Amino acid sequence: MAKIPTMFSLRHLLVLSLALNVSLVLRIVYESEQGCKLFWLKKLIGTSMAGDDSERETHIVQRARLSVSNFSTRSGDHEGGERVINLDHGDPTMYEIFWRQMGDKTTITIPGWQSMSYFSDITNICWFLEPEFAKEVVRLHKVVGNAVTEGRYIVVGTGSSQLFLAALYALSPHDAAQPKSVVSAAPYYSSYPSMTDYQKSGLYRWAGDAQSFDKDEPYIELVTSPNNPDGYVRRSVVNRTEGALVHDLAYYWPQYTPISSPADHELMLFTVSKSTGHAGMRIGWALVKDQEVAKKMTKFIELNTIGVSKDSQLRAANVLKAVSDSCGREGSFEEGESFFNFGHNVLAERWKQLRAAVQQSGMFSLPNFSPAFCTFFSQVLEAQPAFVWLKCEQGIEDCESFLRRHKILTRGGKHFGVTPDYVRISMLDRDENFNLFINRLKAIEG
Amino acid sequence: MAKIPTMFSLRHLLVLSLALNVSLVLRIVYESEQGCKLFWLKKLIGTSMAGDDSERETHIVQRARLSVSNFSTRSGDHEGGERVINLDHGDPTMYEIFWRQMGDKTTITIPGWQSMSYFSDITNICWFLEPEFAKEVVRLHKVVGNAVTEGRYIVVGTGSSQLFLAALYALSPHDAAQPKSVVSAAPYYSSYPSMTDYQKSGLYRWAGDAQSFDKDEPYIELVTSPNNPDGYVRRSVVNRTEGALVHDLAYYWPQYTPISSPADHELMLFTVSKSTGHAGMRIGWALVKDQEVAKKMTKFIELNTIGVSKDSQLRAANVLKAVSDSCGREGSFEEGESFFNFGHNVLAERWKQLRAAVQQSGMFSLPNFSPAFCTFFSQVLEAQPAFVWLKCEQGIEDCESFLRRHKILTRGGKHFGVTPDYVRISMLDRDENFNLFINRLKAIEG
Repeated sequence: MAKIPTMFSLRHLLVLSLALNVSLVLRIVYESEQGCKLFWLKKLIGTSMAGDDSERETHIVQRARLSVSNFSTRSGDHEGGERVINLDHGDPTMYEIFWRQMGDKTTITIPGWQSMSYFSDITNICWFLEPEFAKEVVRLHKVVGNAVTEGRYIVVGTGSSQLFLAALYALSPHDAAQPKSVVSAAPYYSSYPSMTDYQKSGLYRWAGDAQSFDKDEPYIELVTSPNNPDGYVRRSVVNRTEGALVHDLAYYWPQYTPISSPADHELMLFTVSKSTGHAGMRIGWALVKDQEVAKKMTKFIELNTIGVSKDSQLRAANVLKAVSDSCGREGSFEEGESFFNFGHNVLAERWKQLRAAVQQSGMFSLPNFSPAFCTFFSQVLEAQPAFVWLKCEQGIEDCESFLRRHKILTRGGKHFGVTPDYVRISMLDRDENFNLFINRLKAIEG
Repeated sequence: MAKIPTMFSLRHLLVLSLALNVSLVLRIVYESEQGCKLFWLKKLIGTSMAGDDSERETHIVQRARLSVSNFSTRSGDHEGGERVINLDHGDPTMYEIFWRQMGDKTTITIPGWQSMSYFSDITNICWFLEPEFAKEVVRLHKVVGNAVTEGRYIVVGTGSSQLFLAALYALSPHDAAQPKSVVSAAPYYSSYPSMTDYQKSGLYRWAGDAQSFDKDEPYIELVTSPNNPDGYVRRSVVNRTEGALVHDLAYYWPQYTPISSPADHELMLFTVSKSTGHAGMRIGWALVKDQEVAKKMTKFIELNTIGVSKDSQLRAANVLKAVSDSCGREGSFEEGESFFNFGHNVLAERWKQLRAAVQQSGMFSLPNFSPAFCTFFSQVLEAQPAFVWLKCEQGIEDCESFLRRHKILTRGGKHFGVTPDYVRISMLDRDENFNLFINRLKAIEG
């Protein structure tokens, strides 16, 4: 056996071993630090830690930067020059700021192999409904107190538009000699007539203003509350036994209107477009009391699109969860701003500015809302709708054309079944466009 | 200074220090191993490594575990016992294995504030089409060589079902006295009649088998090639001047059929459900030559669902990109298996097993396909369709009922406009179900 050379005494070996220890300890500390640094770096730029997904990541980060830089550049142009402001649609981009502030909390990561099947839950009547999304829908209604979910079937749709069509399909008999009449009190949502009639269906047909409906036959009444375009709380107006009701509650959320009690109707429609601002997801849901109606609505969506995007359902579940999480118990707020507080505050400020501008101009009038107790905010509050239902005064007959000359695109009263001295204007655009709109409104003189 | 007690000699300290060395070395080795194990575990179950998205991850991981554990448990049960195998739908879960192997490469990360607007590109006729998705559609068709994209408008749909309806809407005049006839040669896709007629539209109506269509009036002919259910390559059969054609090319991909040349028709429909296997995304696209038709199809989708999920379009862009990336230049393959190679190999093996089982049983017959040159694989190949179009022989009149008694759910010939001695069976299910199907088929004796 080889003897250790004399130059290697025990003392030498001890020093060597201690040096090795120090080196090993340093390596462990260094590696932990690197792991943490990488973790925080990736957290900061809001990407997943999937190392080989760099190309996709870069793309998303680039888009974000581009979008932010565009926004800053355009913000510098306070008067907006000759730029036309399009407030015809209710594009809910006002909410982008809130979701940016939330950072990674609502980022969703979907692996390539997930949700490949057509089916989500074959035990559910609505077999393409993602259970996670259904769970968050129920939870959010409980947190907000705006709808009864007990004893209801949930049907998910590609936005509430698809659910509106599914409801018409489900509530119309398939063997009737004549199509069923579909009515809504004017001013009604401008898309109802075209959505009802574009397929020239033999099952149902648009029959106009509910207030003048006098046929003695079965009908479907659409009750939008708060109403699009005017923001008023509504009830059905026809009230006959052979009527079926569809309650479109897209705007029955605390940022728009005081929540009086949980809505408890036969068939209620909701959408993420207006509740959370995620219009691009195309996700809506129906709460349906009658099992047969829920089955027929599901059948409609099966024949129309064979289900609803699972990716958007999963993302919507994430977003609804974040909204519920942001609300404290019994309407009080935890740390940070709750989603509804944000929405309520932005709209309160916008409505204040709008009322001041309208008063300054003297050319227009606005609806007034009676204050009511909101069970969510535990306060008496006024409605502050997602749209302004503006009336041109002083003999201006065509309000849409009048505002177009001032480079403001709106939607005229005739689309809503009333006179053209009214227009609907979106209140949900980005700050930049809203401010430009207010400035232009102020500058209009009689 | 305290003196080291005599019991701690230099020798003792050396031993202690060496022990510490060993312990530190072991810790480093252990941690590396754990890191790797965690990495491979996550790779295996295909989740992202985003550390702060834990709640979402937990959900996804749980689903994955559940799915994996179910799979293993059930795999042990080779005969499947009394379990019914459902091969009625064409659920493309066969492709899950490929996408799992791809790991994080196709994982998508979408921040909460992204894609909130209704609009994707207001300069495009199809204003809800994500530019990234459109780019990858064009690239993939170029890589595969299965469709001409130059001079075409792309319209995205919630699956190709919605695009099918959009095409009927766009190709039917809105002021005609009678609905336009819609025909397809039998056996035709079983959903065509119900999708055409469920709304009782006054614009179009199902008129049955194209081969017996003899009315002297405008019509729409649906040409599905390769055909669902039988897999044969098809051309239009009516061939009159007043006909409009819709080419449903959902299966015109190299794993199913030899690619002869780029398809160059007026209106062509494709879908990710069958090309990549992502049915749950509900994403399809149409390539449309006529601008007015593209506009009307877009209008249909606007009225039907106000656009198409942006989340799924972004995810589909990612997946199509991965498919194109997996294919080398001129049809040869880079490192690793290309997507189409995977699909082709799995289906080739399955069709081989199926033909052997059918021969062994002697109770059935199968379609035969003439080999043809595939420009993508640069080889003469046989078709290996996504469905088997099986015929019961030996006097069995109702093949669907016959197979149901053997616990195999299929779709009978009458749904496809032919006799009930035929059934359509999905070839795209998971290995487990396919193997069980083959074993049961072999066991059926006359």
